[in-house]
Amino acid sequence: MKKMKRMLHGGDYNPNQWEKEVWKEDMRIFKDAAINSATINVFSWAKIQPSEEVYYFDELDEIIEMLTKENYDIVLGTSTAALPAWMFKKYPEVGRVDFDGRQHRFGHRHNACPHSLVYQKYATRLVEKLAERYGDNPQLSIWHINNEYGGECYCEKCEKAFRVWLQNKYKTIEAVNKAWNLEFWGHTVYEWDEIVVPNALGDGMDANNSAFAGLSVDYRRFMSDSLLDNFKMEKAAIRKYDQETPITTNLMGTFKGLDYFKWAKEMDIVSWDNYPSYNTPWSKTAMTHDLMRGVKNRSFMLMEQTPSQQNWQPYNSLKKPGQMRAQSYQTIAHGADTIQYFQLRRSVGGCEKFHGAVIEHVGTENTRVFREVSQLGHEMQSLGDSLLEANNPAEVGIIFDWDNYWALEYTSGPNKDLSYVDQIHQYYQYFYERNIAVDMISVDADFSKYKVVVAPVLYMIKDQMAENLEAYVEKGGTFVTTFMSGIVDQSDNVLLGGYPGPLRKLTGVWAEEIDALAPEQKNNIQLASGQKGETFLLSDILHLETAESLGEYTSNFYKGCPVATKNHFGKGQAFYVGAQMDTDSLAEILDQVCYDGDVKKVVDEKTNLEITRRQKDGKDFYFILNFTTEDQKLPETFDGSTDLLKNERLSVETVLQPYDVVLVTK
Amino acid sequence: MKKMKRMLHGGDYNPNQWEKEVWKEDMRIFKDAAINSATINVFSWAKIQPSEEVYYFDELDEIIEMLTKENYDIVLGTSTAALPAWMFKKYPEVGRVDFDGRQHRFGHRHNACPHSLVYQKYATRLVEKLAERYGDNPQLSIWHINNEYGGECYCEKCEKAFRVWLQNKYKTIEAVNKAWNLEFWGHTVYEWDEIVVPNALGDGMDANNSAFAGLSVDYRRFMSDSLLDNFKMEKAAIRKYDQETPITTNLMGTFKGLDYFKWAKEMDIVSWDNYPSYNTPWSKTAMTHDLMRGVKNRSFMLMEQTPSQQNWQPYNSLKKPGQMRAQSYQTIAHGADTIQYFQLRRSVGGCEKFHGAVIEHVGTENTRVFREVSQLGHEMQSLGDSLLEANNPAEVGIIFDWDNYWALEYTSGPNKDLSYVDQIHQYYQYFYERNIAVDMISVDADFSKYKVVVAPVLYMIKDQMAENLEAYVEKGGTFVTTFMSGIVDQSDNVLLGGYPGPLRKLTGVWAEEIDALAPEQKNNIQLASGQKGETFLLSDILHLETAESLGEYTSNFYKGCPVATKNHFGKGQAFYVGAQMDTDSLAEILDQVCYDGDVKKVVDEKTNLEITRRQKDGKDFYFILNFTTEDQKLPETFDGSTDLLKNERLSVETVLQPYDVVLVTK
Amino acid sequence: MKKMKRMLHGGDYNPNQWEKEVWKEDMRIFKDAAINSATINVFSWAKIQPSEEVYYFDELDEIIEMLTKENYDIVLGTSTAALPAWMFKKYPEVGRVDFDGRQHRFGHRHNACPHSLVYQKYATRLVEKLAERYGDNPQLSIWHINNEYGGECYCEKCEKAFRVWLQNKYKTIEAVNKAWNLEFWGHTVYEWDEIVVPNALGDGMDANNSAFAGLSVDYRRFMSDSLLDNFKMEKAAIRKYDQETPITTNLMGTFKGLDYFKWAKEMDIVSWDNYPSYNTPWSKTAMTHDLMRGVKNRSFMLMEQTPSQQNWQPYNSLKKPGQMRAQSYQTIAHGADTIQYFQLRRSVGGCEKFHGAVIEHVGTENTRVFREVSQLGHEMQSLGDSLLEANNPAEVGIIFDWDNYWALEYTSGPNKDLSYVDQIHQYYQYFYERNIAVDMISVDADFSKYKVVVAPVLYMIKDQMAENLEAYVEKGGTFVTTFMSGIVDQSDNVLLGGYPGPLRKLTGVWAEEIDALAPEQKNNIQLASGQKGETFLLSDILHLETAESLGEYTSNFYKGCPVATKNHFGKGQAFYVGAQMDTDSLAEILDQVCYDGDVKKVVDEKTNLEITRRQKDGKDFYFILNFTTEDQKLPETFDGSTDLLKNERLSVETVLQPYDVVLVTK
Repeated sequence: MKKMKRMLHGGDYNPNQWEKEVWKEDMRIFKDAAINSATINVFSWAKIQPSEEVYYFDELDEIIEMLTKENYDIVLGTSTAALPAWMFKKYPEVGRVDFDGRQHRFGHRHNACPHSLVYQKYATRLVEKLAERYGDNPQLSIWHINNEYGGECYCEKCEKAFRVWLQNKYKTIEAVNKAWNLEFWGHTVYEWDEIVVPNALGDGMDANNSAFAGLSVDYRRFMSDSLLDNFKMEKAAIRKYDQETPITTNLMGTFKGLDYFKWAKEMDIVSWDNYPSYNTPWSKTAMTHDLMRGVKNRSFMLMEQTPSQQNWQPYNSLKKPGQMRAQSYQTIAHGADTIQYFQLRRSVGGCEKFHGAVIEHVGTENTRVFREVSQLGHEMQSLGDSLLEANNPAEVGIIFDWDNYWALEYTSGPNKDLSYVDQIHQYYQYFYERNIAVDMISVDADFSKYKVVVAPVLYMIKDQMAENLEAYVEKGGTFVTTFMSGIVDQSDNVLLGGYPGPLRKLTGVWAEEIDALAPEQKNNIQLASGQKGETFLLSDILHLETAESLGEYTSNFYKGCPVATKNHFGKGQAFYVGAQMDTDSLAEILDQVCYDGDVKKVVDEKTNLEITRRQKDGKDFYFILNFTTEDQKLPETFDGSTDLLKNERLSVETVLQPYDVVLVTK
Repeated sequence: MKKMKRMLHGGDYNPNQWEKEVWKEDMRIFKDAAINSATINVFSWAKIQPSEEVYYFDELDEIIEMLTKENYDIVLGTSTAALPAWMFKKYPEVGRVDFDGRQHRFGHRHNACPHSLVYQKYATRLVEKLAERYGDNPQLSIWHINNEYGGECYCEKCEKAFRVWLQNKYKTIEAVNKAWNLEFWGHTVYEWDEIVVPNALGDGMDANNSAFAGLSVDYRRFMSDSLLDNFKMEKAAIRKYDQETPITTNLMGTFKGLDYFKWAKEMDIVSWDNYPSYNTPWSKTAMTHDLMRGVKNRSFMLMEQTPSQQNWQPYNSLKKPGQMRAQSYQTIAHGADTIQYFQLRRSVGGCEKFHGAVIEHVGTENTRVFREVSQLGHEMQSLGDSLLEANNPAEVGIIFDWDNYWALEYTSGPNKDLSYVDQIHQYYQYFYERNIAVDMISVDADFSKYKVVVAPVLYMIKDQMAENLEAYVEKGGTFVTTFMSGIVDQSDNVLLGGYPGPLRKLTGVWAEEIDALAPEQKNNIQLASGQKGETFLLSDILHLETAESLGEYTSNFYKGCPVATKNHFGKGQAFYVGAQMDTDSLAEILDQVCYDGDVKKVVDEKTNLEITRRQKDGKDFYFILNFTTEDQKLPETFDGSTDLLKNERLSVETVLQPYDVVLVTK
Repeated sequence: MKKMKRMLHGGDYNPNQWEKEVWKEDMRIFKDAAINSATINVFSWAKIQPSEEVYYFDELDEIIEMLTKENYDIVLGTSTAALPAWMFKKYPEVGRVDFDGRQHRFGHRHNACPHSLVYQKYATRLVEKLAERYGDNPQLSIWHINNEYGGECYCEKCEKAFRVWLQNKYKTIEAVNKAWNLEFWGHTVYEWDEIVVPNALGDGMDANNSAFAGLSVDYRRFMSDSLLDNFKMEKAAIRKYDQETPITTNLMGTFKGLDYFKWAKEMDIVSWDNYPSYNTPWSKTAMTHDLMRGVKNRSFMLMEQTPSQQNWQPYNSLKKPGQMRAQSYQTIAHGADTIQYFQLRRSVGGCEKFHGAVIEHVGTENTRVFREVSQLGHEMQSLGDSLLEANNPAEVGIIFDWDNYWALEYTSGPNKDLSYVDQIHQYYQYFYERNIAVDMISVDADFSKYKVVVAPVLYMIKDQMAENLEAYVEKGGTFVTTFMSGIVDQSDNVLLGGYPGPLRKLTGVWAEEIDALAPEQKNNIQLASGQKGETFLLSDILHLETAESLGEYTSNFYKGCPVATKNHFGKGQAFYVGAQMDTDSLAEILDQVCYDGDVKKVVDEKTNLEITRRQKDGKDFYFILNFTTEDQKLPETFDGSTDLLKNERLSVETVLQPYDVVLVTK
């Protein structure tokens, strides 16, 4: 398969929205910014296929010809993410039925029923034509299937397909009844066609509630699989004509709808769209990059980011000078091989016309935004292929699991404010702030690669997971888990025998009760060191079985009960954090985890800088970033190194201003 | 009819969700907790009738056999609250159409259209079979029809039935036009089939708004009656085979949907489900018990409460040690003959799996929750039948009326924050805090039993009500009413001639105007005693006709106008409270009410304890409960008594800790 | 055409809701209040046409006969704003389909699909009958068509009509594609019937969001035109029989749904309904009056206000003593020829029964409300026709444009909190507080009449607008515009070449970037005078081209950039305000605008009173109103004048208490 030869610097490009004279101007201007890549044909189905029988490729031919001539890496969209109007007119059933049971009509995007044969037929035919026509173009670097897959359909076709999916999974109707505990509320079913989709007219309540979480979790799995089948269908159509070009689709970080670990297996390379809000912590963005690297366990493409501002957030602040550059290097630091923008030229109309672009509405290169893009482009050019596919070594793995995400958030009780991603982020942040590299890993990852494995709110324990975790700790691993772990099996049936169920032996604790705290409530705690703190949200009432206490509640009726524990197990140890703690208290627990696990920081010195390491060909690259609002001193470790970006010698006197970036190799 | 022989201590029990070996374990464990009753078969329709023609009773036979053998009081559900899937598949119209006009499918529970002949046919057939099969079991103590009746249907069948209901009520279409004032906005109708259901597609706006409150209030009455007809249908089916066993269904306190006074007339005994939130005042729970006692004016069953925590509230806090016991005794104190839990064993799946139970997921009796259940069970056992059907004597009656509840809250203006139950509770609380016993009574109660009758926001005055109240006061009664009283008749048509309309003579005031205050606004007042206070929400501008002023506004343009009044009327007096007052100001008014009405406290001494009295066979039982967070001294009155629960002698030195309970008899 | 002979003092009157004896009482009581006019037959379709073939005019005949005899000015409604039930029953398609795609049934009002032929046929027939029957009544003063036109329909009939409307506007489908930039997201259409209505099932998201603002703005225009066609249809039906009586319909101020400038062209006289909330600033009410005067550029009718309180607002506070009178004189001051109430007698039922009236539910004249109405009525009577059709001279014009309103608020980004009316009001308020008269004008007004033209957030620049503004300034005019101006053309396509696009030359600035601030954020600024201030919401980053700076940012990365500018252009000057400023900072800019524009205050002296001038027959009338909560001194200018209302001589000692009104002529 083709490999990338350079780091891509480009983005979504829609010359089809413009007159020809603009195309020439684009080519001229992009050159100034060292743009070397363009993502095209993402939303052009209606243009390419104006009616059921007619295809029109002239314009796309011209675009590809131009980019080929200009030596662009071409990222070629398949255009299937928005259906043409004629298809809705002739085949209204091609559209989705929403959670409220309404059949949608022509409008928006991401609007095809995944089980529509009409959609499947015409999407396949379109993609085959594209692959046949452009598959052998040497400038074609990546196939970009569809766009930001997501959303659900609850139509009759999906309902029938869901029943088949269930038959494959459960074999018998009795197994379904047992898996979802349908005896509850008298929901026992006897025939497959008695099962209906869990939308607002059935067992669903809203996006986060359902009478039977087991059913709704399975519907999420089914929908994720259904869209993945659409992806695989397009992939097969491409591969009929082109076996060489890597294929991707752009993911969306912690997006809830799709099980990206499953998706990544089908993708040749992962790409994703990074749109932090004005107040997103940098640690959360870093975590999401690590997750996107983690789903395939390799370097990824940054398919989209804005050079300046978004349009669809409530408050679309500008990126400050240097911020886009710093964000881009953070992206590369955490595993990206490309920096691509949405978009290269800003649209004149449609709902994204206030979305920033390399060329803004003013139409020239004389803008701050362009100059910053240009600076970055030239710097990336100077790095050549030195960082392409470099590794991100890590000793800590944090488990992220979409099944768990779904099940945990469908749960009715004990506390409605529980958010999966926020819980994961709380742990990630600890390591981030100490420059300890983290891999975001799946539940079936090879734990033995890590000194420490952290699994916050590991609510769902699927087959073999408990055994795998025990084996890992047994052999010397350090494991951390928390309240709301070990509760249910893959179908959201409780694992009986006392929480944390199958993790009870490993953690050496029994959580007899789980108290819920309202937002205005808190508990007091005191840790082994004497440090006092607070807990929120949920509080386990723990009994030590083989574990030792690391601190206890000092308020409420469970005063004196342990709030966090450590259990020696084989050659390793398992930590259990029984409540949501304030940052300092959690840090005390995790300090001990790191100590026990012998985890190393990227740089030993205490610093407020983000420092990330990538490795390639035996070389270590250090990305040093200042995301604070104050000047920060360079750590002594790097005294005498050279900043590869500015080719400047660094010393202990070097100061990084806010958003400054330094890249050194050792 | 059968009578209860002991206080029931049990709850919802679903062995059908479990393997047989679990059943045995249940029997063993429940015995430890002095569980003597089980509510079964509440949601088993789909299990008992797996298809249209097949019935299967083997499992239920076994359950009943086991419980019979173990000498349980059996509370037998009829299982009609959730329809089997096959019924939806074959007869989709059996499901409800919601406020938004959407036909629902298989899902959730409480999902049958009350006017579906399919539902009626199969529900009747099922209940007849159950009654025939189990009706003569001597352990069968109570029939439990359906479950928590509620919800609405707006289907075509209901629309037609509504028109018939209206014909019965109004006889002529002209009478309908007049009742709802349809001339307003040109809604005059000429044919019965021009009337459409008031959902979002018709005259309804949302749960609390409607273009014609008269229409919507009638629809609520119709729906309450329709579900009640469903109840009566099942009752008749039972009575075909069993004339001996009392029949109930579980009510829900101040639930808005059903007119429980009307329902109680058809029920042999009232039962209800008590689920206070973590921040529900204990006075509100007490009020709701009194209402549930009041709707039938006799002792009731506590059909459901959680031994530990709920799952469906936003924040499902644990009950603290002693809290469940104290809550249970409060329940008994206010009139309960039973303490039953939802649930005896916690489900493994479905949306209530985080709902507490006597046997938790750990599956053993070694839990705090179990121990507290067990303590209570044994205490109840020791009380024998001494309290069964005991009376709750009261000198104060507070009127609660569902028609009024509906009409008041449909009203557009003057202040959207007006809540019926909150207004009632504000008055109840005064008496609660002083240990003055209260009956919650209907508008057609026999007022002569009470020294004081309180009717907050008595918005709707139905036929004979004004006359009855006048007669009551005439003969010496003390009556209290408030702003927003005497406004409309039974169809929400204004009673002209100056507010409070038919109560104007009785109260001796005319409310010329009603001012609405936004949440950030208040008025100042000064009472006769010189005490200063504040008012909120609404402010009547009153004119004294025959009444005297008890205080006046000291701010706003109606400064100097009376804010509360008292009117001598015959041998009694009528108080009128013209605004929502702060607690202390209201207390000054109600102190005078109690003084004039010669109302006696259960215990004269000032105390922060809740003290409630029940009477049976000439004996007084005093329930003394500490719902504060501080230790409280026992009132001197009880010096030398014996606590029946702990068999301990009490003295002036006795201190009740938070949640402590003392039961003494005098 | 007939002219009004006196100022009308009356309101909505529905004797049809009452027995005959009440009518007589009404006549007696109204006389006491100098009521001289009644608006009748607004919602009587169902009464007048009880079935498809039957008409019944007897009652209306009697009402008109009575009013005629009593010498009332009759404002005659056409009753078409609420359809009779029989029409829905026989022709369900006559009802509207809502944004969610639901077909509505009989209910509420304003419920006809504007493109329903059934509606059109029967509305026309009804109005013809009314016009034929009553058109020659000499007491008939005004035809009042329908009521408060508004709302949308998304049915199939409207969809088809929309396509025809688009064909008329755009001629070719290619022009539509270009206008809405449908190439974006692959929405290119090829046939007219591929276009679907932008509701929730198509490209609409909610009332304020859409995938294609161009489409949704056109749908708003289409709906405004469709309802206007309904109005014109009724007007034509009237004119068949009555060419003399002026025709109106009651508008609703800044109501978003209809382009009132377009509507006013078809109306003989504008009338509107004024319902400020308890916390609406008086400046906003004044602005709305000026807008209602402005849409037709002549005096208007106040068709509805409440004498006391509303019912449909969240908190329906009473009007304080004098407040209704002061509000009425403010209305007259800003251009009204009538004061009419909703309603003359309060309804007994229906959702407006808590809406205040001249005769309240008590049914007598002995109320504060009645006395205040009466005082006003007699004062108005004493004014005779002296103020009828008087002018409101103004030197400042503020542009208000519904196309702009729609497009600006559909925009996705940069800041969701941007509100068109609030932005306009911020500027209006400056002039209001200084007693500088303002005209609210359309984008195609004759600017040359004004010394200053202000156009806040002039987002959409339609054909010729830029040229007209340039010509205006060229000749000496002073123009003010702001951030978010000059962005798009009539179809919401961006005007390329750098913001503010076609206004760039006139303003002499280029806005390179637009920063969005979240509610918790602000920027610091310093103006030329040294005054320090703050900005919010949005911040342009400006480059001076030919303009000079009037102040600059002192924080954020654009510190030092100008925040407001002034550009000499021909003989005039154009001001640009680049951010939402605090009140004092904006005042400094606008002070300079007034200085440059040589704008005169109505009264030079500094005062907190609202002082408005009207002119007629060479006389100046000054309305002096105290809307503060403190006493205010009369300005010296009026020393020695006579208050026309109280016939009192005024001096420098005269004090106006809150809500006091003085009317003097000079």
